[in-house]
Amino acid sequence: MQMNQQLAIGIDIGGTNTVFGIVDARGDILYRGAISTKQNETVEKYIDALYQAILPAIEKVGGKDRIKGIGVGAPNGNYYKGTIEYAPNLNWKGIIPMAELVAARFGVPAALTNDANAAAVGEMMYGAAKGMKDFIMITLGTGVGSGIVANGQLIYGHDGFAGELGHTIIIPGGRLHWGTGAKGSLETYTSATGVVLTAKEFLAAKPEQPSILRKVPAKKLDSKAIYDAAVKKDKLAMDVYNYTGEILGRALANFVMFSSPEAIILFGGLTKAGELLIVPTRKSMEENLLPIFRDKVKLIFSQLNESDAAILGASALVWEIKV
Amino acid sequence: MQMNQQLAIGIDIGGTNTVFGIVDARGDILYRGAISTKQNETVEKYIDALYQAILPAIEKVGGKDRIKGIGVGAPNGNYYKGTIEYAPNLNWKGIIPMAELVAARFGVPAALTNDANAAAVGEMMYGAAKGMKDFIMITLGTGVGSGIVANGQLIYGHDGFAGELGHTIIIPGGRLHWGTGAKGSLETYTSATGVVLTAKEFLAAKPEQPSILRKVPAKKLDSKAIYDAAVKKDKLAMDVYNYTGEILGRALANFVMFSSPEAIILFGGLTKAGELLIVPTRKSMEENLLPIFRDKVKLIFSQLNESDAAILGASALVWEIKV
Repeated sequence: MQMNQQLAIGIDIGGTNTVFGIVDARGDILYRGAISTKQNETVEKYIDALYQAILPAIEKVGGKDRIKGIGVGAPNGNYYKGTIEYAPNLNWKGIIPMAELVAARFGVPAALTNDANAAAVGEMMYGAAKGMKDFIMITLGTGVGSGIVANGQLIYGHDGFAGELGHTIIIPGGRLHWGTGAKGSLETYTSATGVVLTAKEFLAAKPEQPSILRKVPAKKLDSKAIYDAAVKKDKLAMDVYNYTGEILGRALANFVMFSSPEAIILFGGLTKAGELLIVPTRKSMEENLLPIFRDKVKLIFSQLNESDAAILGASALVWEIKV
Repeated sequence: MQMNQQLAIGIDIGGTNTVFGIVDARGDILYRGAISTKQNETVEKYIDALYQAILPAIEKVGGKDRIKGIGVGAPNGNYYKGTIEYAPNLNWKGIIPMAELVAARFGVPAALTNDANAAAVGEMMYGAAKGMKDFIMITLGTGVGSGIVANGQLIYGHDGFAGELGHTIIIPGGRLHWGTGAKGSLETYTSATGVVLTAKEFLAAKPEQPSILRKVPAKKLDSKAIYDAAVKKDKLAMDVYNYTGEILGRALANFVMFSSPEAIILFGGLTKAGELLIVPTRKSMEENLLPIFRDKVKLIFSQLNESDAAILGASALVWEIKV
């Protein structure tokens, strides 16, 4: 690393933890760190904890003068306004002017975007979508997020909230969403939470079918337990993935007919299932596509590790900041 | 009109007829005309008929030197390649290099795009979407087409085929599409064809319910007959619009959560139903939106007449042509 080179700070705010990194223009993460998001009840305390955690790293790379700016990825983040608006998974309610608060505390420019958008930018600059002008990034974690790139640009929409694909209705009148109250949204089926609900439904609906999952206490029945069972060829657990893939593939087909991306990049905890998930997803996607779109769209997993993609994507915002 | 001003020709190829116009840069259509698409079995005959029809108009405006180029809107039109690919409603099968054929015959540059995309460009340059950077145009005609604009640019996708919203699956396992074989696509419900199918289903499902439509011979039961009955407060006909609006609104909600447009512009024959259609559509759209998107999206009808929008949109391509 050259000592005169400008650096960026990338911060990814998650419901539980916040990860951050100091990144150079090539996408090398020079320093990494994390703090708890949850334990800071007020945003003031949070900003303070963040500052205390990052300051030593800033000093190690040569001080504030080398930091061009800070990029933040956050749930319900609004790129246009630099705000976090009504994020259901955060302690801080209402509208938080996060970019402004960060810029004021650190004394450098700051920009903010939605966490899934940040990950998409990370993929475009440093990951599986390098060089692509049209792709969709879908995060399959506790929830389902998305970032959409068309014509080489992230789609923000007129208000900065575009790309809420996890909330599109995929089965009208279907499963009730625990947070939004909507019925049949993608997130209720293809998130880690949704997969557990599917397993519970299958266990209840087929009481005669043997399954490793019957021995797992209800509290410990999480997406990892289902994955472990499926790897052992447990039929019911494998059916859970087949069902999840069928629904995900159907949704992806609709997204393809919207923006005709070169690739769909899957990302997040659920993608650890690998072939178990991607095989039924691809099959269902192809079946639901208009012939003109078939056998064209690459369905791939992210090549970045999860926290790196978010840090890199958030830091990438900095190179766009107009000072 | 100034005699030295450059002009554009806009051509809209429909399954039955082709309309064209000579347009100035302000969007005034100086000359209009039409030929039959259907009666020309070969594309060579068609190009010839088109040339014979437009030539007198070109001469009236001062000859070929004043024509900067020709823009064509066509079903299954590919902007990147200038081709019409496997259009189910046209006589000419396979891949037709239409832009090339037109340019060769007329001796001026030509560009081509999908017909719904052309209409969207027309709305953006001269219609209801003037000044908007994010909107979706939906045509509700014999079929359902769409053109999507984000960040001020039409979304073409990686292959030029983006924006096939009529083929997105809105009711999984629903109504069979007569052409694609898919089940439950938007077009099977919210096109003129779909509305007639709904009326027939309702008439069969409720044999006891009186309706003006029962007196209409099956062959004459078209979307106009349903509209006429609904205007006379025929309950069954009004239910057809309510059902159509409910499904359309649900689909629009999904589209909004994709690209968060400032407006959705409805266009095409079915929009003549006015309030009968837009009231249930708006209600259903709002109900299916995540709160963050509610009461924000303008749902409006096109202000251009149908053939003008297509001619204007096609002609608008000309101003982008690099010569």
